[in-house]
This record gives sequence, structure tokens and C-alpha cells, in this order.
Amino acid sequence: MSALDVLPTPAQVRDAAARIAPHATVTPVLRSAALDQRVGAALFFKCENLQRGGAFKFRGACNAVWSLADGEAARGVVTHSSGNHGNALALAAATRGIQAHVVVPEGAVQAKLDAIARAGGTLHRCAPTQAAREAMCAEVQARTGATLVHPYADTRVMAGQGTIALELLRQAPGLDAVITPVGGGGLAAGVAVAAHALAPDVALFAAEPAGADDAARSLAAGRRVTDVVPDTVCDGLRALVGERNLDALGAHRVEVIAVDDAETVAAMRLLWTELKQVVEVSSATVLAALLKARGRFAGRRVGVVLTGGNVDLDALPWRG
Amino acid sequence: MSALDVLPTPAQVRDAAARIAPHATVTPVLRSAALDQRVGAALFFKCENLQRGGAFKFRGACNAVWSLADGEAARGVVTHSSGNHGNALALAAATRGIQAHVVVPEGAVQAKLDAIARAGGTLHRCAPTQAAREAMCAEVQARTGATLVHPYADTRVMAGQGTIALELLRQAPGLDAVITPVGGGGLAAGVAVAAHALAPDVALFAAEPAGADDAARSLAAGRRVTDVVPDTVCDGLRALVGERNLDALGAHRVEVIAVDDAETVAAMRLLWTELKQVVEVSSATVLAALLKARGRFAGRRVGVVLTGGNVDLDALPWRG
Repeated sequence: MSALDVLPTPAQVRDAAARIAPHATVTPVLRSAALDQRVGAALFFKCENLQRGGAFKFRGACNAVWSLADGEAARGVVTHSSGNHGNALALAAATRGIQAHVVVPEGAVQAKLDAIARAGGTLHRCAPTQAAREAMCAEVQARTGATLVHPYADTRVMAGQGTIALELLRQAPGLDAVITPVGGGGLAAGVAVAAHALAPDVALFAAEPAGADDAARSLAAGRRVTDVVPDTVCDGLRALVGERNLDALGAHRVEVIAVDDAETVAAMRLLWTELKQVVEVSSATVLAALLKARGRFAGRRVGVVLTGGNVDLDALPWRG
Repeated sequence: MSALDVLPTPAQVRDAAARIAPHATVTPVLRSAALDQRVGAALFFKCENLQRGGAFKFRGACNAVWSLADGEAARGVVTHSSGNHGNALALAAATRGIQAHVVVPEGAVQAKLDAIARAGGTLHRCAPTQAAREAMCAEVQARTGATLVHPYADTRVMAGQGTIALELLRQAPGLDAVITPVGGGGLAAGVAVAAHALAPDVALFAAEPAGADDAARSLAAGRRVTDVVPDTVCDGLRALVGERNLDALGAHRVEVIAVDDAETVAAMRLLWTELKQVVEVSSATVLAALLKARGRFAGRRVGVVLTGGNVDLDALPWRG
């Protein structure tokens, strides 16, 4: 475990906000009367599909890249990612003029791989397992001296993702609750730290695909469950939750709501139809969770993080 | 011709802005580095797909509904519309608690008809010709005493649509140009009046489907050409440009750029992919025009009105 695998402090999230400000977009918060009505709550959608690179991942990657000392930075950065973090790291590296190596598992969305290449990242393909990703990453690291920027188990990355909460709580004052998706847990952990620093009473929720529900199982078991084999259309949420990320979910009393893929795909259509936002399927887990656990949110003001919008329009999940 | 078939004054547009403020959304202006790069200009997308009802039409309809005296209003309103104006009028009527009758031509997008019904509007179907629309409208008007709110040849409607320009020029200062689609010309006329009142030097453009290019032909001929039979996938732009609307295009030196459907569909995909906005095909004519006439916009700051986002996700134009 690296020295960076600790949760960020609220101060580190504020530092991250200052560090990424010249590069990242302050994304808008959108509303929909139709969706409010369906859920029975006041929903404030934080549109990270409109973030640079089309996903929130740019925040964490950018914070990591600009946290490096000049000497480290010169040797580049490396990561493994099913897409959005890799793309984000390539874009962030480009803002500093350094090289990004991205290890991508087979089966990743082609549009995301194209975006990484366009951003100037170097792609390294591997088998779609956690072990293969990590082995290939270590190899590139050994060969180039590049700094590993882990997609979620990295203090700098979690701090960067947490900046979402700083913006959201300012843009939508008086929130009762905030919900994000959970995969590896970088977003959920960063948001938990930042949200509770500003608003200790805000209730935190995470939406997880039922076919990759290791976070829910881990919280239930009181220990990190690692024998879950992901089976979900949510390509951005297949990673196992990290150790410190899981600690954050527990410490901040984040309630995990598991949703079936069919519920998520239906919610994705709703977001496209009613909010007019192109969001990827992983992003839609949050609306699926809001609809499924409607009673928990009744009459409340809920911040809803829409994580990304990098979609292959020729392979929409409701087609054939 | 009704007494309302005259162009609005800038003061009438400002009055409209105040009248609709309690009901309409101040839509955001979004940017995309990727689209800026493709066009070679700084683009400011005014997202009327995020307007109430999913299209700019709510502005004009709302201004018309709230311009009525109480006695008139009590007898309801009526219009003919391929969809978005009808939906907008139904929504606007609901804000005042009055009845809306909507005459819809066969072949209209089902999602739009569903939305009209959900908004409480009464649907009256007719053949898809200008004559059939007007005849059915007159019949409903005679029977109910409802006030006709024409989709574009109506001062109140044009003034309402013009409020887009007031917002856009405030949100994106220093624009060199503004481009809208043109169908009947309510939007183009309202925007021309309002934009030139605030910024006399801003250059105005309108994008028109090549298969319904009566505005371009009319400007070229110096008279209103009415023998164009619309043949375009842009269901919102099939109407013939109105007389006063055409006058506005001439008086404000609006340059019309005709685009093929294939160019428009490709531009629609780009807006979904890069701007992450669900916009309908008619809205994409503006980006198609920017790409086609790239040289005209090089290095300029261009306001781009995205008119609506009411799409049938099961009938996307790039499918089969």
C-alpha cells in the first residue's frame, strides 16, 4: 500500500479545488420538474458529464498531476482504467506537458479508448481483471519511472473528486442529502469528506449496480468483500471498492443502494428524455436508486452527481 | 392578416422578458473546446433544450398567454403545431389555468404529441398541409371562441422568442454573431429585433434545411416563395416562413445558410457526443451551418441557439 492510500483531509480537498481551478470546469447544476415529481423530492443534478473530458474523473487526475514535483512529473504518469480515468489522466497530463500511460482492460468502451488516444495518452492493453491491470501498470512504471495515479485508491485523486461537493453545496444551498455512484469509491470517499466538512448533517448515499455490489456486501459484512465478479452494464462501476474508500463509506455512514441494470437503463432513458443530458449508464444508477428508494428521499433536497457522458451512440443499452 | 402579424419592438421583447420571468427558465450557455476547434470559432451554445417543455417555444407561448385580457383568456387558446409550439402552448395555458386546443398534422413526432396531452392540451388531428392546419384551427376557434396563438406569425410569440437574445447577449458578452435555425421564422425574427436593439453590429445568421429552403429562396427572389414542398428530417422546420418574419430577415440582413439533412444528422451526433446535450434534429442545423460555412465564422465569438431536445429515443435519425 502506498503512502498515498489514505483519505484526504478537508483542507486537501480545498487545496485541490485551488489547484484544478485553472483547468477544470465548474459544472452547472440542472433541475427537472418532471424528475422531481417522479421521485417526490427536489433534485439538484451536478452535471459532471459537462466536465472536461466528459466525466468527473478529470478533477482527481488533474489534482494528482499538478501535485507532482517537477522531477517526478517529467517521468510521466501511469494508470489503469476502463476509460474515463485514463482519458482524464491523459488530458490532465497534457495540461502539464507530460506523458500519460494508460493501461486499459479488454472490453472497454471504444469511444473512451479513442478519446484517450486523442488526448495524447499511450494505450497499453491487458486482460479485464484487477490482477492483469495492476501487473501491466507495475511493468510500465518500472520501465519508465512514471508515477502511478491510481483511479480511486489515491489521496490526491479522492481530494480532487471531493471538489464536486464543495461546488454542489455552494450551488444548491441547504441540501439534505447527496448521492453518487460507487465503484472503486474515489468519488464517494472524496464527496463524503468534503460534504461533511461543510455540512455535517447531510445524509450520504451511494448507488451501486446489484451485479457489482461489493461495497454493499462489504459494509454489511463489516470487512472488505473481494470475491465479487462484476456482472453489470455499468462499465464505470466494475472496480472493487478500495480499502480506504470503504473506510470512508463506513465513517461517513454512506448508505449504499443496489440497483438492477434494468432499473439503471430505464433511469438513463429518463435522464436523456427529461433532463436532456447525455449521460453514460453508470451515471444513471443514482436516479435508479432515487426511484427505487423513493420513500427515503420524500420531500428532501437531494444533490445528485451525474458522473459522465461518454457514450457510444451506436451501442446504446436499450438497443436490440 | 391579424393585427398581431407585425414585428415586435425591442420594448415589446423587454416586456415579454418580464412577463415570462415567473414561468420560464433562464437557460444556461454551454461551451465545448472540441466543437470550438472543429469550427475554428468560440461558440456559446444557448441551451433551449433545457427550457420548460424542452424547447424555446415556451417563451413565445407564455408571453402570448399572459398577454391576454382575462375575458379572452377564459375562452382558451388554440394553435396548429408539429409539436413543440403546441406543447409549449399547453404548458403556458396550464400556468394560467386555461384551456389549450392544439391542431397537430399527421406525421408529427409521437413523443411531442404525448407531451401535449400530458400538459393538459386537447389534440385535434389534421392532414399535414398548411391549408388543413389553418382550416382546422379556424373551426376550433369559431366553435370555442379561443384566441389563436400562431406558432410564428404573431407579435407576442416573436417577442417571447426574442427574449433568448436578451439573455444570450448578457450571458456571453461581446458576441460577433448569432445563429438560429429558421422555419416559420418566429425565433429568427424575435432574435433579430432583440439582438440588434442591444448590439447593432452583431451579424445574424439562420440555418435552414436544404429540403425546406423557402427562406433562402425568398430572400434571393426578393419576394416570399411559397411553392416549396418541405422534404427534410427536421420536423420543426417544415413551416413556410411568415411574411413579417421574412421582412425581419431582410431588414436585419440575416444570412440564411442551407444545410443538407445528412450534414444536420452528423451535427446532431456531434452535439450529443461533444456537448453532451440531447437536442432534436432541427436544432442541429445551426452546427451543420457553422461547419459548412466555417470560413465565415473563423476566430469569431458566435452565439448558437439550440432550440429543443424533444427526441424519440427509439427513432434516432442515425438508426437503420
